[in-house]
Amino acid sequence: MRPGVDEFDVIQSLSKMLPSPPPEVLVPIGDDCAVLRLGGTEWVAAADMLVSGHHFEGWATPEDVGYKAVAVNVSDVAAMGGTPRFVLVSGGAPDPETALRCMRGVIKACDELGVYPLGGDTTRADSLTVDVSILGELSAPPLLRSGARPGDLLAVTGELGASAAGLLALQGGERVPERLVRKHLRPEPRVETGLAAARLGVHAAIDLSDGLASDVRRICERSGVGCNIGLERLPVADDTRRLAGKMGHDPQKLAATGGEDYELLLAAPERTLEALGEESGVPITVVGEVTAEGVVFLRGGRLVDDLSGWDHFSDPASEGTRGPSSERWKE
Amino acid sequence: MRPGVDEFDVIQSLSKMLPSPPPEVLVPIGDDCAVLRLGGTEWVAAADMLVSGHHFEGWATPEDVGYKAVAVNVSDVAAMGGTPRFVLVSGGAPDPETALRCMRGVIKACDELGVYPLGGDTTRADSLTVDVSILGELSAPPLLRSGARPGDLLAVTGELGASAAGLLALQGGERVPERLVRKHLRPEPRVETGLAAARLGVHAAIDLSDGLASDVRRICERSGVGCNIGLERLPVADDTRRLAGKMGHDPQKLAATGGEDYELLLAAPERTLEALGEESGVPITVVGEVTAEGVVFLRGGRLVDDLSGWDHFSDPASEGTRGPSSERWKE
Repeated sequence: MRPGVDEFDVIQSLSKMLPSPPPEVLVPIGDDCAVLRLGGTEWVAAADMLVSGHHFEGWATPEDVGYKAVAVNVSDVAAMGGTPRFVLVSGGAPDPETALRCMRGVIKACDELGVYPLGGDTTRADSLTVDVSILGELSAPPLLRSGARPGDLLAVTGELGASAAGLLALQGGERVPERLVRKHLRPEPRVETGLAAARLGVHAAIDLSDGLASDVRRICERSGVGCNIGLERLPVADDTRRLAGKMGHDPQKLAATGGEDYELLLAAPERTLEALGEESGVPITVVGEVTAEGVVFLRGGRLVDDLSGWDHFSDPASEGTRGPSSERWKE
Repeated sequence: MRPGVDEFDVIQSLSKMLPSPPPEVLVPIGDDCAVLRLGGTEWVAAADMLVSGHHFEGWATPEDVGYKAVAVNVSDVAAMGGTPRFVLVSGGAPDPETALRCMRGVIKACDELGVYPLGGDTTRADSLTVDVSILGELSAPPLLRSGARPGDLLAVTGELGASAAGLLALQGGERVPERLVRKHLRPEPRVETGLAAARLGVHAAIDLSDGLASDVRRICERSGVGCNIGLERLPVADDTRRLAGKMGHDPQKLAATGGEDYELLLAAPERTLEALGEESGVPITVVGEVTAEGVVFLRGGRLVDDLSGWDHFSDPASEGTRGPSSERWKE
């Protein structure tokens, strides 16, 4: 089924090669961020790379690409319940004008999302490429992927599928509907909700970059649990439904697999989610339950079994609208 | 003379767009690393990106590229007088096998150079691309580019031109002489010397990535000083001379401009350099003096004025053997 080495094999092989971490490393590779104790304070660290032709096409301006590279890293910090603080940004571009435009997007995102750019690197590359590393500060124990327990509910912030619908519009050559296109190009990471979730003791969290169907499996694998997800429960906005329908997509499946939502998926007892909903300005929607084993997607009481994950080394042309995000090293 | 925007313009424009740094940032963009105070301890942070086709060709294996991406970042920490501690590594590759081979080089370098990989990202890209971000720990005030004073001597560690000679051999289709090729593919950052230099109060330092002729200008600009450099004083090994001669290059000019030496250039009073020479296992060679103004290269008492810098956006095909390194954002 899998020709040659795939991304899973890469990650598995790498994880086995790593030595045991030094004492400052509280959480090593395998979550949205690593966790470090530096001089008595706790920090989270992560990196994400975006590459033109793989993660985006001509419809994204260099400013969009720079902005988004920062936003997706901020989302990783949000998923740990941290406050995003510092980034390093490396950009490869075919010419200095493109590099400058991309870095303008980076700086705009830094300004809007409250992170400070410590520096980085600019260089020549045939494809516009941006890699951002981020340091975030923790003021509560971090939200991990590994804390989900049977009986927890699974909930998502905001809405699903809007970014994927925006991508469909862009791929069709349109920058309308504007709201959906913006959801794709300028995602708004859920920093405040992540902070509140950590404070309230939410059991597990991940940011939805590759799509709920893939990302919920990561929580389940790391936590040693299963889940039932009801596709009818996914929060899908009317404009997303309309656009998906127009382009021949099942809106609920698009919401489950489209990716790049940069919403948070949270596992917690009902009362914790209720408190979070009251504290957070963002809608929190229960989409399923944590079970002892088996990742199950249901619609109308029937099993839906064609929701597959995103492999970052597969051919983008064959991927439909699935997630342009990229993958952390993980077990 | 300069068509359109060049790298200098990019950097100048970016620097002007940055807000004032938060209080944890002791040294912002503009040196080999930024300096941060995190929870009562001081850290340096930097990133460097290597891109296939720009920084290296088919003669470098994916393992070489991964290894070198870590080594050049460790060199930035060495230039600040820090201890390299943690890296985040993002790799883009055309296929998973190449990604895995590159990451094997990364992990080997981490092991040999004493840094721990916190994570990162793997993704698909047409050209093999590796970006490394590094955190280093300070135990003495950092070595900055800005501390050189008239009357200081300028000295370099180790030898110059060996990496450039190795690159000439590789470009000529040979992996011999092995020592020079290895100097190019597997540079040895001067961590111990950097630590001793910081402890001894060396006034200024930079790592030689773009070549002495370019990098000494950075020290002079940041310090508001000038310098005289004697080309005959540059430490050039016999095998470097022979290879350069065979390939039709002036060995001293190759040593001044070839780049990617990853040696340290240091500015300090004579007695400090003597103490450093005694403490460090690496040869320290005085190559010139800091003056009040003007960057001057001399040979046989005559001015040598065709030693130009490396622009990372210029056409690699027209660059001869000049530096495959890349450029930090700087003023």
